[in-house]
Amino acid sequence: MKKAKFALVGLGVMGQNLALNIANKGYPVVVYNRTASVTQEFIARLTNGQSVTSAYSYADLMASLEKPRRIMLMVKAGPAVDAVISEIKPYLEPGDILIDGGNSFFADTERRTAELERDSFLFIGAGVSGGEEGALHGPSIMPGGSLAAWKALQEIFTAAAAKTQDGEPCVDYVGPRGAGHYVKMVHNGIEYAIMQMIAEVYDLLNRGLSLTATELADLFVEWNQGELASYLIEITGEIFKKLDPETGKPLVDVILDEAEQKGTGKWTSQNAFDLGAPTHAINAGVASRILSGMKSQRTVAQKLIDGPSPTFIGDREVLLAACKHALFAGLVLAFTQGFGLMQLASQEYEYALDMQVIAKIWRAGCIIRADLLDDIMQAYGRDPGLLNLLFDEDFNKAVAKRQGALRYVLINAIRMGVPVYALSSALAYFDAYRTERLPANLTQAQRDYFGAHTYRRLDKEGSFHTQW
Amino acid sequence: MKKAKFALVGLGVMGQNLALNIANKGYPVVVYNRTASVTQEFIARLTNGQSVTSAYSYADLMASLEKPRRIMLMVKAGPAVDAVISEIKPYLEPGDILIDGGNSFFADTERRTAELERDSFLFIGAGVSGGEEGALHGPSIMPGGSLAAWKALQEIFTAAAAKTQDGEPCVDYVGPRGAGHYVKMVHNGIEYAIMQMIAEVYDLLNRGLSLTATELADLFVEWNQGELASYLIEITGEIFKKLDPETGKPLVDVILDEAEQKGTGKWTSQNAFDLGAPTHAINAGVASRILSGMKSQRTVAQKLIDGPSPTFIGDREVLLAACKHALFAGLVLAFTQGFGLMQLASQEYEYALDMQVIAKIWRAGCIIRADLLDDIMQAYGRDPGLLNLLFDEDFNKAVAKRQGALRYVLINAIRMGVPVYALSSALAYFDAYRTERLPANLTQAQRDYFGAHTYRRLDKEGSFHTQW
Repeated sequence: MKKAKFALVGLGVMGQNLALNIANKGYPVVVYNRTASVTQEFIARLTNGQSVTSAYSYADLMASLEKPRRIMLMVKAGPAVDAVISEIKPYLEPGDILIDGGNSFFADTERRTAELERDSFLFIGAGVSGGEEGALHGPSIMPGGSLAAWKALQEIFTAAAAKTQDGEPCVDYVGPRGAGHYVKMVHNGIEYAIMQMIAEVYDLLNRGLSLTATELADLFVEWNQGELASYLIEITGEIFKKLDPETGKPLVDVILDEAEQKGTGKWTSQNAFDLGAPTHAINAGVASRILSGMKSQRTVAQKLIDGPSPTFIGDREVLLAACKHALFAGLVLAFTQGFGLMQLASQEYEYALDMQVIAKIWRAGCIIRADLLDDIMQAYGRDPGLLNLLFDEDFNKAVAKRQGALRYVLINAIRMGVPVYALSSALAYFDAYRTERLPANLTQAQRDYFGAHTYRRLDKEGSFHTQW
Repeated sequence: MKKAKFALVGLGVMGQNLALNIANKGYPVVVYNRTASVTQEFIARLTNGQSVTSAYSYADLMASLEKPRRIMLMVKAGPAVDAVISEIKPYLEPGDILIDGGNSFFADTERRTAELERDSFLFIGAGVSGGEEGALHGPSIMPGGSLAAWKALQEIFTAAAAKTQDGEPCVDYVGPRGAGHYVKMVHNGIEYAIMQMIAEVYDLLNRGLSLTATELADLFVEWNQGELASYLIEITGEIFKKLDPETGKPLVDVILDEAEQKGTGKWTSQNAFDLGAPTHAINAGVASRILSGMKSQRTVAQKLIDGPSPTFIGDREVLLAACKHALFAGLVLAFTQGFGLMQLASQEYEYALDMQVIAKIWRAGCIIRADLLDDIMQAYGRDPGLLNLLFDEDFNKAVAKRQGALRYVLINAIRMGVPVYALSSALAYFDAYRTERLPANLTQAQRDYFGAHTYRRLDKEGSFHTQW
């Protein structure tokens, strides 16, 4: 029997779809799942000609694979990944390649890399974005780890990955060790920020202008034709169109407003605090989900705590246009903060990340894909060492000419009592970043006053302490 | 020779001052420092009658202490604490009490508690706030850990702690294991938020109204007479008065505007993300310090990136009055978020924290002491299970009547391009918290659309997934 070229371990929906995707590209895949019945059901649903075979033990799995073996794990991030690795390890031979395609924390991937390389196995930590659909039809893949392993995977991953409109594959080698999962983590952080910004604009238009789901659907479909064109704007339009079959109402209107999270956005913010990266909008995205989860308290609070009327007073068309521009400025600032974080991480962890490559592979397949990423790719192409996206002339202008709209939206939202945490955080970043002299001199004076922490001066080098 | 009642290990300024404080209260103290010359210099500076003796080995230290021994470590948080503990451990007898008075991470304190209790030693992790002055004249002390150890320390700590105007000591047992250091961590998180809010108001008045340091000093001195009365407002007034002897300029004007940090604020935000607590203003305080640290980039950015003029257009007196009320609302919201975090932590870590006790011991000695804490103490006295400070009628009213001023300040700052991250984060928290229906339903719809993460409904129980 012909040996399989690729193994997929863990047949959740993502694992199943990735296996099908790779098989459909002409690479025979062997699959394994801890619970055999899941494997059986998956195999039973296959159509003729799909070259997917099954294994019911690791010994079988190994025997049915071409060497060096390429084994991708699609299991829940955390202890399950370690468990599966330790189960598989006894069957591996030096040079075999393990790939973790889950949302593993990058520090875990660092540790696993060291552990596996000690035994001469190759390890790839690959961020995979695109959800179920992406996994089946082409995800964005962010592989990090062994360069030799990447070379042995490049053909298959390139075939499986999403393609941009100009046919370029959304996969490329990201960097050593945990770099792939790091980049995926930041991808998700940016995703949190953008989703929260979209939610805030929705809130403003819904409560402030009383736009219905149908009107919002039209608006987002229209926005998706222009500069905002992106997957998240597109699906937002689709979501507003969907009716609930049970009640006949727009489905979005019957969904509970408690946003959940799986942790990758949180990791981004926590890591940004460790590295000293200002990721204001990402932090706001994470914290907004947290606050949304306190529905029972919010229900009490709404009754007890007064605030202004959310009804917008002013020219509706002006607010609508401003929301569009504010959202675009917000998107740019979310990406700016995410790329800024990756630049710091690249130094801190010696990942040697290439920002142009990252923008390139985010252009299709992934959740934050957006036309905007073409421009980001070009900006880093013009200047690979660009310190901040806003230092690129095009982005500088793009935000500069929309900052008035962003301010207008925020001013109105604050007046109306509609929370706009991510958008206001994006502006706070922008306004602080472009300010040479911030009031942090006072903070330093206070720290020296109460804690003798010393301060530096503008006019000379050194550390100083004052007997205040 | 009479035995000492208390040992102090680690003679940094805080350690020296705590030793003097305790000795001055009539409890003979023996001190030890790794570098003997530091001990010698400290002892040489003592005045007659201060009952401080020195030890130059742990054996000596132990021999000179009354049993059970009370040994307080004032060494740099981190590995140094573990190193000193492992050095001292061989000399301890069951029942001896170690106290870590540094800014240790609470999870380290949890681990050390388990390790020390295994050998029948008692351990106290004590948050100590008040800086050098506080250590000498009376800090706020937040001891957590062994209740038996607390009982053996209560008399000395009560004597050493700050006293409120009505004579109450600012120390009390906080809770088991890492509870003391946890509470101190949140104290520092709140401190970060408040300091950033003060900085933002300073920025607005300085750049927007061109107030000089002298005018700002007068303003803060005046504010410190009213509802804002607090240590941080007080020292801000003092700071603005101070002239630089070298240049003759206000000292604050020659201080570099890069705020530094030692990590406790960052820990608070990171832990709040883990526990799912909305600490928007604290997060903003931490992230603002981070961004301030990018002075060289900001200097370039100011030249490249345009923004509005920071000059305020409007009635100066109105803005000044609004700033005062906005700051008070901001302070209340910072405390609200900090206490909210502690409530979650109390459940998560089974600390059984008493919010009234915490407010009580923060009323004097510590950096965030404020008249406001009397009211917070009373609010938790009226309802120990208060879910949110804003659910207390007095605080509800206090913020409700100032929210207009806060909105006014933010609207103007946004118009002027002055970053107001902590204040706007405080309002974003307020506006989201008092909103029963947030737009997180859209977030959940998006997550279900791209990741099949399912959603819940308003009208019935269960998890649902839609083929969008």
